[in-house]
Amino acid sequence: MSRKSKGLDAERELIHKFWKMGWAAIRCAGSGSIKYPVPDVLAGSSTRQIAIECKTNQATRQYFTKKEIFELKQFSEIFGSESWVAIKFPKKQWFFINPEDLDETENSYVISIEKAQIKGLLFEEMIS
Amino acid sequence: MSRKSKGLDAERELIHKFWKMGWAAIRCAGSGSIKYPVPDVLAGSSTRQIAIECKTNQATRQYFTKKEIFELKQFSEIFGSESWVAIKFPKKQWFFINPEDLDETENSYVISIEKAQIKGLLFEEMIS
Repeated sequence: MSRKSKGLDAERELIHKFWKMGWAAIRCAGSGSIKYPVPDVLAGSSTRQIAIECKTNQATRQYFTKKEIFELKQFSEIFGSESWVAIKFPKKQWFFINPEDLDETENSYVISIEKAQIKGLLFEEMIS
Repeated sequence: MSRKSKGLDAERELIHKFWKMGWAAIRCAGSGSIKYPVPDVLAGSSTRQIAIECKTNQATRQYFTKKEIFELKQFSEIFGSESWVAIKFPKKQWFFINPEDLDETENSYVISIEKAQIKGLLFEEMIS
């Protein structure tokens, strides 16, 4: 399976989880390819709306470009949503990370699987 | 141009208008083809989030299926958004209509161009 279709599958998996828990969630068309700062997924439950950048990962660290994180925060500020990154490491559950908890390097943001387990929220924690 | 690509163009046109006015807006992937009640467009401006069903029309009346309107309202109730239908009649501006202002028939909802002009809001009015 291509990296792109793995990413799509991951986004769809998250969307199913939201609807199953009584939230509404959609995949944003054109994320990563249009000129506006659009997240991968938007979810809401009447009083909370959240914008999510999703990643699946076969390694022990997850990198984000500075542009990805800047645009996620920019979208949320305009739209009125919370910003989260969601990461699926191999054989782990999804972790939801506040972008402020990512480590900044010269050219990117990064989080290790160890830090994700400490700082990240599980799906059920994030929506509660 | 196919009906589908005309619909896409219309959605993209609306999305540009929102961003131009300082709102964030996205096109929802899978609208009309996935199992969840997903609107065509979602837009937000920090305190308001709105879900939109978009139609372009070459006639003088616009029909909606009962399912379209039911799902638009259902999505908004769960997500926490307002529900609007946006209609573009030939040589007219976009009209934004509250779904409650559509006329119900046995099998559908409908609005005439005349009623859309009376009851509908222009883009600038709807976002203000």
